[in-house]
Amino acid sequence: MKATIYEGNKTFSVIHKEVEAPAKGEVRIKVAYSGVCGTDVHIYHGMMDKRVSIPVTIGHEMSGTIDAIGEGVSGFAIGEKIVVRPLDDRGVKPSDKGFNHICEDLKFIGIDSPGSMQQYWNVPSFVLHKLRPETDLKLAALIEPLSVAVHDVRRGELKAGETAVVLGGGPIGLLVAMVAKETGANVIVSEVNEKRIKKANELGLNAVNPTKIDLVKYVIEQTEGRRADVVFEVAGVQPALDVMCEVAGIRGRIVMVAIHGQKKEIDLFKFFWKELKLIGARVYEKEDYEKAIALITANELPFEEMITDVQPLSNIQQVFENIDKNPDGMKVLMDCQS
Amino acid sequence: MKATIYEGNKTFSVIHKEVEAPAKGEVRIKVAYSGVCGTDVHIYHGMMDKRVSIPVTIGHEMSGTIDAIGEGVSGFAIGEKIVVRPLDDRGVKPSDKGFNHICEDLKFIGIDSPGSMQQYWNVPSFVLHKLRPETDLKLAALIEPLSVAVHDVRRGELKAGETAVVLGGGPIGLLVAMVAKETGANVIVSEVNEKRIKKANELGLNAVNPTKIDLVKYVIEQTEGRRADVVFEVAGVQPALDVMCEVAGIRGRIVMVAIHGQKKEIDLFKFFWKELKLIGARVYEKEDYEKAIALITANELPFEEMITDVQPLSNIQQVFENIDKNPDGMKVLMDCQS
Ligand SMILES: NC(=O)c1ccc[n+]([C@@H]2O[C@H](COP(=O)([O-])OP(=O)(O)OC[C@H]3O[C@@H](n4cnc5c(N)ncnc54)[C@H](O)[C@@H]3O)[C@@H](O)[C@H]2O)c1
Ligand SMILES: NC(=O)c1ccc[n+]([C@@H]2O[C@H](COP(=O)([O-])OP(=O)(O)OC[C@H]3O[C@@H](n4cnc5c(N)ncnc54)[C@H](O)[C@@H]3O)[C@@H](O)[C@H]2O)c1
Ligand SMILES: [Zn+2]
Ligand SMILES: [Zn+2]
Repeated sequence: MKATIYEGNKTFSVIHKEVEAPAKGEVRIKVAYSGVCGTDVHIYHGMMDKRVSIPVTIGHEMSGTIDAIGEGVSGFAIGEKIVVRPLDDRGVKPSDKGFNHICEDLKFIGIDSPGSMQQYWNVPSFVLHKLRPETDLKLAALIEPLSVAVHDVRRGELKAGETAVVLGGGPIGLLVAMVAKETGANVIVSEVNEKRIKKANELGLNAVNPTKIDLVKYVIEQTEGRRADVVFEVAGVQPALDVMCEVAGIRGRIVMVAIHGQKKEIDLFKFFWKELKLIGARVYEKEDYEKAIALITANELPFEEMITDVQPLSNIQQVFENIDKNPDGMKVLMDCQS
Repeated sequence: MKATIYEGNKTFSVIHKEVEAPAKGEVRIKVAYSGVCGTDVHIYHGMMDKRVSIPVTIGHEMSGTIDAIGEGVSGFAIGEKIVVRPLDDRGVKPSDKGFNHICEDLKFIGIDSPGSMQQYWNVPSFVLHKLRPETDLKLAALIEPLSVAVHDVRRGELKAGETAVVLGGGPIGLLVAMVAKETGANVIVSEVNEKRIKKANELGLNAVNPTKIDLVKYVIEQTEGRRADVVFEVAGVQPALDVMCEVAGIRGRIVMVAIHGQKKEIDLFKFFWKELKLIGARVYEKEDYEKAIALITANELPFEEMITDVQPLSNIQQVFENIDKNPDGMKVLMDCQS
């Protein structure tokens, strides 16, 4: 089998090795597609070298089929389509209060242990979610990031008829916007990259550039003064943090999706004045995966448009170099069978 | 009648003037007691001179009885005990979404219009809440700040058996702690002023000094690693903002009670990582007042201990000067009938 290896120092290699039998409690997956996540790009940039065990296969956004079933695993059949919810919560403790998806000792599969950018992948069976026979395996590689979006919208308790402002129109922001729209909300995407604004428009989303228009004024106009009921911070930059407290209306909910490595300045007075809520959101729970699987299987949203490139495993080095050169692209998939 | 007047420049005067008849829709209140709030001290310091219309009578934490009833007002009788919920929400608009207590055009009575530090006070009847005949009028002057505390605990959705950490043991923080304890929570107060720690202990509260012990470690020990379910930020300083994200456990809720005039640094990573919520809380709603009235009337909590001084209206200048000299005191009441 072919496997890609992150070697450190912005370098991937592609190796050939024996297919391994699944251990007790595991299954072997024949990986179909594996999407490149922002986190994978961070790893490639060496920003997570302390966390990953170099040399290592990375990747956690994937689809595939069951290829072999280890001892003690039941309820799965060879050839069944599946996706992995890459959360290893075996270290869960009572102090985690039952929130297994964010338990203190959570291990993220594909970061803290080997990932999906290879032809065959052994994982514990508890991370599997079954797809329907008709689910498209290429689109299914979007289920992981789509589950992030489903989780974010659920954390924001967004309801039909409400107005959502999505700050940042990257892959996650656009998926959040699509799910928010599907929920029946009026959605405004704020994005500074004109090519990504164009992409958002192609997806049927209303996207504006906050460096060209006054976003706060625009949201006030669009909502007859109510402003946003829910704001999603998916840009990860200070200007988004500044504007989020402005565009949010009275009792507005702000979902913090972006990962801010450093402390940032926040206008707490606005939290007091308008009784805003800031809601942290991290990965997904089981029900988010099931919702994302249903959305991908129904295929009524323009998911296809989110996939801007598909490349064979052997091109992995070039794929990561190209992502750095082209910040406009959306989701790149590795075709793990070629 | 006697009335106190804030003249600007850290100066109050006491004047004598005619008692006025209540206008249409108003009642005249015979004020019993009027508490000094942190906001009143801010006004005295000249920090709100742009907002208040000098010369003006301030004060909004009060108790009293109905003294005269204006045209068109029904349902009240002379001599009835009442308190004022000092929120003038007549400017409410649809974009306020029904959250009248924080409506965009809210006027705060006692700041934006004349207040209660006088013998008689005319107010629109819609701000009145009736007390029971047996409610103690001195304690009833605590109903306004107690309603803040009730509102904060409700915003935090604190439940019996949960652990609450209250950062700041000033008048508001201690009332929050008392209400939190009454809810059945385990309460830890963090306060840097030793005299206020002593006061908290006298109130039966567990209070610690975060400059002397490691608060995070202490909370972890007290909760078997769960940390706090709800944190109340009632200190208003950067160290409290830093520690709040640390003491909060997984899915912890942080209620922002303190008013931060400037942007402050916040560890947003922790919001993402533990899926924390930051919940803005401002003043109170009708139901908070009713709950506070019930608590004060039942008088089963050590409210009496919160009142550290009672002074006649004529001493107002001295009262404010003393508050500056003595940061250890809790609630000072003006006796408005002497
Ligand atoms: N919470 C989670 O579990 C989770 C999961 C996945 C990703 N994330 C985080 O979500 C964020 C978004 O992920 P992504 O892959 O879409 O990243 P991305 O960098 O591709 O997208 C961010 C977008 O924000 C835009 N932007 C920059 N400045 C802006 C501004 N001032 N206003 C509006 N838009 C602006 C950028 O042009 C870019 O398109 C990242 O911070 C990522 O780490 C969180
Ligand atoms: N949200 C609302 O509607 C509302 C209503 C009233 C008051 N407030 C605000 O609530 C806050 C508290 O009001 P108050 O009257 O009790 O004020 P206060 O100043 O008397 O109390 C603050 C307390 O925090 C303590 N403190 C300082 N540094 C600390 C630290 N590092 N750790 C722990 N404690 C520390 C101080 O010693 C003081 O006792 C103020 O910011 C006030 O503006 C808000
Ligand atoms: Zn990912
Ligand atoms: Zn007050």
